Amino acid sequence: MSETNIDADTSASRAARSSARFYSVIPAGGIGSRLWPLSRAGAPKFLHDLTGSGHTLLRATWDRLVPIAGENRIMVVTGRAHRTAVEAQLPELGDENIVLEIEGKDSSVAIGLAAAILERREPGVIIGSFAADHVIGDERHFRRAVDEGIALAEAGYIATIGIEPTEAATGFGYIECGVAVDVEGAPSALGVTGFVEKPDLDTARSYLAKGNYLWNAGMFIARADLLLERLGRTQPKLLEGLLALAEAWDGPDRGAVIDRVWPTLPKVAIDYSVAEPAAKDGLLTVVPADFPWDDVGDFASLAKLQSGSRSDLAILGQNARVLADSATGIVVSETGRLISVIGVENIVVVDTPDALLVTTSEHAQRVKSVVDALKLSGRTDVL
Amino acid sequence: MSETNIDADTSASRAARSSARFYSVIPAGGIGSRLWPLSRAGAPKFLHDLTGSGHTLLRATWDRLVPIAGENRIMVVTGRAHRTAVEAQLPELGDENIVLEIEGKDSSVAIGLAAAILERREPGVIIGSFAADHVIGDERHFRRAVDEGIALAEAGYIATIGIEPTEAATGFGYIECGVAVDVEGAPSALGVTGFVEKPDLDTARSYLAKGNYLWNAGMFIARADLLLERLGRTQPKLLEGLLALAEAWDGPDRGAVIDRVWPTLPKVAIDYSVAEPAAKDGLLTVVPADFPWDDVGDFASLAKLQSGSRSDLAILGQNARVLADSATGIVVSETGRLISVIGVENIVVVDTPDALLVTTSEHAQRVKSVVDALKLSGRTDVL
Repeated sequence: MSETNIDADTSASRAARSSARFYSVIPAGGIGSRLWPLSRAGAPKFLHDLTGSGHTLLRATWDRLVPIAGENRIMVVTGRAHRTAVEAQLPELGDENIVLEIEGKDSSVAIGLAAAILERREPGVIIGSFAADHVIGDERHFRRAVDEGIALAEAGYIATIGIEPTEAATGFGYIECGVAVDVEGAPSALGVTGFVEKPDLDTARSYLAKGNYLWNAGMFIARADLLLERLGRTQPKLLEGLLALAEAWDGPDRGAVIDRVWPTLPKVAIDYSVAEPAAKDGLLTVVPADFPWDDVGDFASLAKLQSGSRSDLAILGQNARVLADSATGIVVSETGRLISVIGVENIVVVDTPDALLVTTSEHAQRVKSVVDALKLSGRTDVL
Repeated sequence: MSETNIDADTSASRAARSSARFYSVIPAGGIGSRLWPLSRAGAPKFLHDLTGSGHTLLRATWDRLVPIAGENRIMVVTGRAHRTAVEAQLPELGDENIVLEIEGKDSSVAIGLAAAILERREPGVIIGSFAADHVIGDERHFRRAVDEGIALAEAGYIATIGIEPTEAATGFGYIECGVAVDVEGAPSALGVTGFVEKPDLDTARSYLAKGNYLWNAGMFIARADLLLERLGRTQPKLLEGLLALAEAWDGPDRGAVIDRVWPTLPKVAIDYSVAEPAAKDGLLTVVPADFPWDDVGDFASLAKLQSGSRSDLAILGQNARVLADSATGIVVSETGRLISVIGVENIVVVDTPDALLVTTSEHAQRVKSVVDALKLSGRTDVL
């Protein structure tokens, strides 16, 4: 596979080269509490244009996956409340490709249900799950990594894509890499020896120094049947529920089964239910990738993404009117009001019609605690 | 005069004790640009309740003066645009006691015109001028100082009230005090040897150390005829204009004379036109006073006034909804939006329907530069 071929690729040529069995899944679930008051229950992170590209993160994710899977082979799993907004963003999305959750049940259910439905429709399908609210800077490199992941999935592995760390970040989980895996079409693949949750700064620094740790970008590629089989090992009840849902999904009983089964489903992240145990069993592989990637987890991350440096004040918002004097950080404007920021470093100002946040990058992680406090005090009108 | 008498004073007893010739003047002119976006051309500082007392600064000034002068002997000089707002604040204000400026012409005109009108109506009147937008914490002490000022005015001096400095403030002008003046009813009065503009920090510290410097609170008490005579020495054209205005004021030609004379009036502060030259001639006296006083010149001053300390986040605004976490400084809310401030020290957040300011106390003086920039760029809708 030469660089030239990749540059010139089209949906048609890629579909021939990638597995025809491949199906993309976009779990579009998280609110993004650390991006409050921009992100809310009613307007979650994936429905915002956080890059200033003119597209929401969801739409950008879709556009990134179309060349890989084709627009008829992308399934979106989201909350019922977001159906209208999601369909407005993705007019190409067919009814068969939208899975509506009556209540968020974390990633094992979101990805597992998509896998169960697709496996039932199309036995042997390979699914690739990609979050709806991440930012990826180099789509060619992304597609090349997904191609390797598909090759690994075809060879019977669960594959993930790990991002080469550019700093000792404490906001991401890490993947500990083992030795190379010999699979045709996946020349850079490595075995995974461990999954690590968000580390403290010293640990993150040691990972960076060691060199065999990658950022966990939450991307998984695997045969749906393998994924479900591994899920059943740690979460048998969950699998049972998913299979019941999948069996009824395309028939007249879907609603009744959802009402019966949904409340019984446990909330568990797929990292715990599938990825970590698979790593222990030597089934998990990783494609190291160095494309720019960010989960835009908080306003510090957004500020960095926007400004590219610490010497500017980044401004986000179509109608933003900002007058800044010796200020750095980020201003997010959803109101069109005039915003003046004078002499503050690493400031974060988020101006929405009913709520205003003022903090600094170093406290960006604490935004979630404000959301929690608002919940506790019953002020849910702004959540 | 015993403390008990002062405690028990009433308008009637005071009017007997103070000069029956006394008339208060309230120049209500300045916008307070360093308090933007709270203070604006359309909603100047004196029309705001900056103390959280439930009263605007103008109303508080009026209420402070009524026991001294009586409500029929207080004249307000303000811009035409503010007539309705001023009358709404001061329903007791008679038509004869409101002087409307078609264009702001600084304090020599505002105070000089009141003096000229009142002197014409009531020769020998003593006027006392007190800004509409200052905050005074101890009204009994204030009244006692004014009483001394009236005694000094009756004795032929121009009197001012100087505030004992509590810190090396750089935001105020200073009065350099000389030796005691022997006037009955003014036991604490001193001669004034100089007026000093806002000093730098080192100079302010030296003033504080020397002990014979007081803050210039912009209060003047004098016979109107003396004030006008002194004004004529430095600003003969200005005096000529004021006398023409005063002559026509209570007759049918007021409008015509205003239209003719107003554009010719120079803008000059009364400190320069009257006070400084009078100090040189030994005519200016000062009553040192230690009541709490502030001109609330910027948000740092407002924050201090509100919180009383640097360890709290002060909140101003009737419908303010503020959720703060480890933040100090001040939040001014005019919108009722939820405002969350996380982990910022000495923050200044001013939230109004069409403009938002975010800065810190140390940059509070720079707010005026934002207003200037907005003027230059033609964005006058928020000024």
